Amino acid sequence: MTTAALEDLGRRAVGASRVLAGASTAAKDQALRLSAELLEQRAAEVLSANAEDLSRARAEGAGDTQLDRLGLSEDRIGSMAEGLRQVAGLPDPVGEVVGGGLRPNGLRVERVRAPLGVVGIIYENRPNVTSDAGGLCLKAGNATMLRGSSSALESNRVVAGALRDGLAKAGLPADGVVLVEDTSREAAVAFMQLEGVVDCLIPRGGHSLIEAVRRHATVPVVIDGDGNCHVYVDASADLDMALAIVVNAKTQRPGVCNAAESLLVHRQVAEAFLPRAAEALEGVELVGDERARAVVPSMGVATDEDFATEFLALKLSVGVVDDLEGAMAHIDRFGSGHSEAIVTADLRSAERFCREVDAAAVVVNASTRFVDGGELGLGAEIGISTQKLHARGPMGLRELTCVKYLVHGDGQVRR
Amino acid sequence: MTTAALEDLGRRAVGASRVLAGASTAAKDQALRLSAELLEQRAAEVLSANAEDLSRARAEGAGDTQLDRLGLSEDRIGSMAEGLRQVAGLPDPVGEVVGGGLRPNGLRVERVRAPLGVVGIIYENRPNVTSDAGGLCLKAGNATMLRGSSSALESNRVVAGALRDGLAKAGLPADGVVLVEDTSREAAVAFMQLEGVVDCLIPRGGHSLIEAVRRHATVPVVIDGDGNCHVYVDASADLDMALAIVVNAKTQRPGVCNAAESLLVHRQVAEAFLPRAAEALEGVELVGDERARAVVPSMGVATDEDFATEFLALKLSVGVVDDLEGAMAHIDRFGSGHSEAIVTADLRSAERFCREVDAAAVVVNASTRFVDGGELGLGAEIGISTQKLHARGPMGLRELTCVKYLVHGDGQVRR
Repeated sequence: MTTAALEDLGRRAVGASRVLAGASTAAKDQALRLSAELLEQRAAEVLSANAEDLSRARAEGAGDTQLDRLGLSEDRIGSMAEGLRQVAGLPDPVGEVVGGGLRPNGLRVERVRAPLGVVGIIYENRPNVTSDAGGLCLKAGNATMLRGSSSALESNRVVAGALRDGLAKAGLPADGVVLVEDTSREAAVAFMQLEGVVDCLIPRGGHSLIEAVRRHATVPVVIDGDGNCHVYVDASADLDMALAIVVNAKTQRPGVCNAAESLLVHRQVAEAFLPRAAEALEGVELVGDERARAVVPSMGVATDEDFATEFLALKLSVGVVDDLEGAMAHIDRFGSGHSEAIVTADLRSAERFCREVDAAAVVVNASTRFVDGGELGLGAEIGISTQKLHARGPMGLRELTCVKYLVHGDGQVRR
Repeated sequence: MTTAALEDLGRRAVGASRVLAGASTAAKDQALRLSAELLEQRAAEVLSANAEDLSRARAEGAGDTQLDRLGLSEDRIGSMAEGLRQVAGLPDPVGEVVGGGLRPNGLRVERVRAPLGVVGIIYENRPNVTSDAGGLCLKAGNATMLRGSSSALESNRVVAGALRDGLAKAGLPADGVVLVEDTSREAAVAFMQLEGVVDCLIPRGGHSLIEAVRRHATVPVVIDGDGNCHVYVDASADLDMALAIVVNAKTQRPGVCNAAESLLVHRQVAEAFLPRAAEALEGVELVGDERARAVVPSMGVATDEDFATEFLALKLSVGVVDDLEGAMAHIDRFGSGHSEAIVTADLRSAERFCREVDAAAVVVNASTRFVDGGELGLGAEIGISTQKLHARGPMGLRELTCVKYLVHGDGQVRR
């Protein structure tokens, strides 16, 4: 695919986005439900395309994690279809009036949600992103330009095809979902620089993808970054509660971004808490600082690099801190601005932690695992933003829109 | 200034931003008022620094426009101080609860406005940006990292010094406002890539600055772009109203981004309207398409480039269109997404224009000149964003904050 071909594909998406911006909620929901139906009807086709992707990936020496992310099953296809139907059931964000009023000169001002236009998604492996992201963007009235990895190309083709056909059957432009089939590095960079076409680019994937986007993108970007999340156990914490929260945050699903990667404990409760935590976290590799190891000598040594690492595995770094300030300074140094939790019974500690910790989500007396779109009531999410501009934390339908000013007068001119 | 020195300056700003994020409204307002006072007290010093800048700029062959933008006077210093006092009088956006509720599992979720952190401003000539931007960022609880042009360095030093001293006198960290004194191109690029320091970069300046930011910035950016604004006179328009609006939008202040650059007229009213417009716009150079020139032959020929140009001068491109669709297609092709106006008596035309025109602000029956923060009730603005992410249209205090999730539980863990 030449840059010209990419631009042409982009122009088709822009054209479709104009129509989708004015499409009724009913038409968009119908397209989502028809796409879900088509996905299920074409399950065999999806699975055979996926088998092709899998065998190519195996031949290229892909590891188990990669193969697991790439692999589809009847069940997974069912979940993808169910996801589209759920999005159809969510309220439409487009047209929501978010503010406004009457100016002294009689001008009536409204701030109204409108679609972004064309949302670009650049992602790795997981073919379910194709339908998840395409569905959410469509509901918010956007066209979606999808650029998946080469490993998932055949699967993505069939899945995107179901969405395109669902759009067409609902009387909407099929180009509301377009797939960039050139999976070369050059095409990826050209995609990140498709100014005037891509209104918002969202990368979904690992470190190197995020870095490439940071380096090359000239279109506006929302970064779905690392989650180096902490649980801080304050001096006043209910230690039973703290134990349940730490175990849940670390082990309930260790491979996701809102899992805890680091445990900080107030020195006053370190001796009471750490041995219990070590026991409850059996099977989790613990690495600690000197003071943590003085209490639980079986821990490995935690380096600064450990404290800076999002393990995404059954491994936890552990530190003992002097006080709340110490915990917040540690988080300030090592945190990635994703989700940070405190367990405390002290109101002032809770309030200071909420106000002063600079993260997308601050959690008091609950597991960091709750920081996702579904749990926080957004219905569904397209990612969790760790940047501050536009969207911070779980991104739902609202974050896939922008706000436009409408100004109504009856002939006002400015003096 | 080496990159290390720039990073060091950035770290000082980050440190200050942590304090400012927790500062009371009273302390921030006091800092703003003290800075205003200091600016006035130091007027002589400001003027002498400015005289130095002006004479250097003259020696380097600066034009009148540039000298006008660079030049300060007692009056302008008074306006800068007044601006700071006005910002002190605006409501503090920090802490505003913008949403939230109770989840079925008892988690209490709040979405709360928090400062962005460090806001970077990169700007040209005008030394008033130093105090205007610094004041707004401070009120929103941010530290500001200012990088003005070399031509205004002496003036910026004294103005930034007044803000720094105002902060210190109010008991807040002086590093809440820092000035990048290395005005080399290399330092500018390093500034645009100061990841982990600059949470939001806002360029204020012409085309080439915006392009440099687009090309080089790796930190999140809000683009304050061109305003190629149209006024479309519909078939049903009250032509007296249309005349007043076109004249105001073009001539009331032609050098600003919300001035009109292009007039589109429905073919049914072209003969009635265009001769009157040409007369009323005496002194404005008109360039028209073939159909406009058929009605007013004295117009020059408008090329596509004319239609694409933000003149920022007493020049207006004129086109005759078949209908509303034709007007919207023209705006879609040539508009810059800033402010677009329609003059119409037809409800359906007004509604379609509002919904389908893709711009930061859509104006019905009023001058495009109203699209600014003061006129739309934001109190003050740091710029007008032409991008869709984060901020669209006039950016006030609210747009200098982000929204953070606070999640309060009593021991909830995820199943």
